[in-house]
Amino acid sequence: MDLPPSPLARPFPDLPEIDGVTLRAARARYKNWDRSDLTFAELAEGTSVAGVFTKSACASSEVEMGREQAKLGRARALIVNAGNSNAFTGIRGREAVEQIMAQVADALECEPSEVFVSSTGVIGVPLPKGKARDGVAAVLEAEPCSWEEAAGAIGTTDTFLKGSTAAAMLGDQRVELAGIIKGSGMIAPDMATMLGYIFTDAAVEPVFLQEMLSKANEETFSCITVDGDTSTSDTVLAFATGKAGNTALSSWEDAGADAFYAALLDLCRDLARLVVRDGEGAQKFIEIAVTGAASGASARRVGLAIANSPLVKTAIAGGDANWGRVVMAVGKAGEPADRDRLSIGFGGTWAAKDGQPLADYDEVPVAAHLEGHEIRIDVDLGIGEGRATVWTCDLTHGYISINADYRS
Amino acid sequence: MDLPPSPLARPFPDLPEIDGVTLRAARARYKNWDRSDLTFAELAEGTSVAGVFTKSACASSEVEMGREQAKLGRARALIVNAGNSNAFTGIRGREAVEQIMAQVADALECEPSEVFVSSTGVIGVPLPKGKARDGVAAVLEAEPCSWEEAAGAIGTTDTFLKGSTAAAMLGDQRVELAGIIKGSGMIAPDMATMLGYIFTDAAVEPVFLQEMLSKANEETFSCITVDGDTSTSDTVLAFATGKAGNTALSSWEDAGADAFYAALLDLCRDLARLVVRDGEGAQKFIEIAVTGAASGASARRVGLAIANSPLVKTAIAGGDANWGRVVMAVGKAGEPADRDRLSIGFGGTWAAKDGQPLADYDEVPVAAHLEGHEIRIDVDLGIGEGRATVWTCDLTHGYISINADYRS
Repeated sequence: MDLPPSPLARPFPDLPEIDGVTLRAARARYKNWDRSDLTFAELAEGTSVAGVFTKSACASSEVEMGREQAKLGRARALIVNAGNSNAFTGIRGREAVEQIMAQVADALECEPSEVFVSSTGVIGVPLPKGKARDGVAAVLEAEPCSWEEAAGAIGTTDTFLKGSTAAAMLGDQRVELAGIIKGSGMIAPDMATMLGYIFTDAAVEPVFLQEMLSKANEETFSCITVDGDTSTSDTVLAFATGKAGNTALSSWEDAGADAFYAALLDLCRDLARLVVRDGEGAQKFIEIAVTGAASGASARRVGLAIANSPLVKTAIAGGDANWGRVVMAVGKAGEPADRDRLSIGFGGTWAAKDGQPLADYDEVPVAAHLEGHEIRIDVDLGIGEGRATVWTCDLTHGYISINADYRS
Repeated sequence: MDLPPSPLARPFPDLPEIDGVTLRAARARYKNWDRSDLTFAELAEGTSVAGVFTKSACASSEVEMGREQAKLGRARALIVNAGNSNAFTGIRGREAVEQIMAQVADALECEPSEVFVSSTGVIGVPLPKGKARDGVAAVLEAEPCSWEEAAGAIGTTDTFLKGSTAAAMLGDQRVELAGIIKGSGMIAPDMATMLGYIFTDAAVEPVFLQEMLSKANEETFSCITVDGDTSTSDTVLAFATGKAGNTALSSWEDAGADAFYAALLDLCRDLARLVVRDGEGAQKFIEIAVTGAASGASARRVGLAIANSPLVKTAIAGGDANWGRVVMAVGKAGEPADRDRLSIGFGGTWAAKDGQPLADYDEVPVAAHLEGHEIRIDVDLGIGEGRATVWTCDLTHGYISINADYRS
């Protein structure tokens, strides 16, 4: 299915070169298509790595192995297969991953555990070893490619290419961050529900890189949802080559750590929001800000209950300020809430305060806001200080068409 | 919106008269419509009552008060308002309920706490007291009506009338049960997610009636979902008039208790499944049987994760045996599961066993099964003895049309 670009698409930005990272792409032809579908990022010796992975109980071999590899903290290569997720493929799936790791490790003269593999696409079909072997051989010989080409090669049903960049000053040392991401359906936040890759030339110790990535994930990738369905393959990896030459960051006390984290957080947030902008069938981008909750975690769960409600999502699709459905979603979230302290607004206009519709509620600005593509919902629970912002998209006929017509 | 009957509709059955129950209906005109929308069931003195209610943190006054009234165990009347849920209406909403209770109690010379009130419809608009007062006055004077008329009067967006019956022998004493139910959207199982009313002429002590209703609810109303959205008003009440003259049932040890429970369970299951058959936009009725789970509760949660997955529901809508999406839903359920022991089948044909697609999987009977309106999905987790069956419907363009066009 060839879909037009999402109306919420953003142009692919200029991403800086990251010293220590070389990108290549090749055609493994995992599906019957003529496009690059095997991506290779070669990483300088000494590169630190951190990762966050799906919590699915049915995770793919790539995820299971990647989780263990990330604990070792070192990476020399990333391989991404597009068109086949290799999930639910048993021992044959695992063998395909091990073959790729061995083949790349042999070429780079590194440990197989330093080769990270991701796969995305159909579930339940073992990754064909022959195509993988030929594809890896080709990509090892390929010319370096651009960020844009790599972002295209990792995509599947994505309707636009997604990348972002950030920079930070560590004292007077400037470091660069760049990231690419794919994802459009089966997006729900049980950590990071898509494939995303972040590269930086900063020197960061692996344990601290993991701590920062996990923290950033909590308020970025874990705060988005398209359809509430958590993938078996979700992975976000961050690679730090150290080529900028700064003293390696190893704790929050280090000069520049806060600046680096701020840049990483910005980058993660931007990448996460780009995935929502490519949500299957999405016509509207929805930001839901929850305040006054019992805690931050509680606020996030309330926000996600709203963001995952098909009745809220269809109301927004229809341009209907149906705050009754927001009340319903708050009520079902299983979190502390008090009906009589609840306030709800759209686009900056409160529709209900303290558990009742406002007598002087002006629907005109709300209706105008809901005509647009960028929707804001405010929910104040009125019982505490917890707050969170989550992002989702509307639920449209496009989602049904994409998913009821798509054949496995 | 006037919708055609669901393709999954069932004809309204012949329901027996229940001694001690008199039904009446009237036009309160809560909406701009010309139909009965206020239903009154008068109950004989000595009627026992039990109830299960939504766990929503934003429940309506009707639910909050009904929960307390049910603990007292006695009922003389049920009033159901259709077209306005009176939820999220603050003190004004509560006053409307109290007015109705007082008005009916006055006419029947009973306690206000013996008058149960339910309301269903739009959220956030206080039930108009004047219309309620006139409507109650009219219904108190109305001629008795049939089960079918009462089932129609409690409905809102329902596309067909839903009722069911069962009988049990308590020794040589036959007792009758009859139930009516409404619901089609905002259906998710945080107990019983719609309005349902069960009447029997059996004599049952209130505490034991509550125990049996709660138990039956666990494997019937709590095992259905249309859209994962839990209503603010969900209520199921069971009334036992005692007119059959049996010795009142008070424990599982009593002769006939098991027979009565079996009939009650059948009735609840049938009513619950009828709600799914009227799911918004539903074209297919889906039964999901989960076996081999760590426990029964775990099996139910896995089943509901599958039943609530928009990707599974759209796959069924499209007639696609996409068991990869079932794997995904099992994985996200947050329950014990082992990818390599998981088996999945459609319509009695296994597609995958022990974590891998079957080599000799025959798609022909599966494709034929998925063409039909009655779909069966089997999932065996292979790790324990827990089992559960849940019911849902597919997710179609009809659901989007109904909910993106509906205006609050």
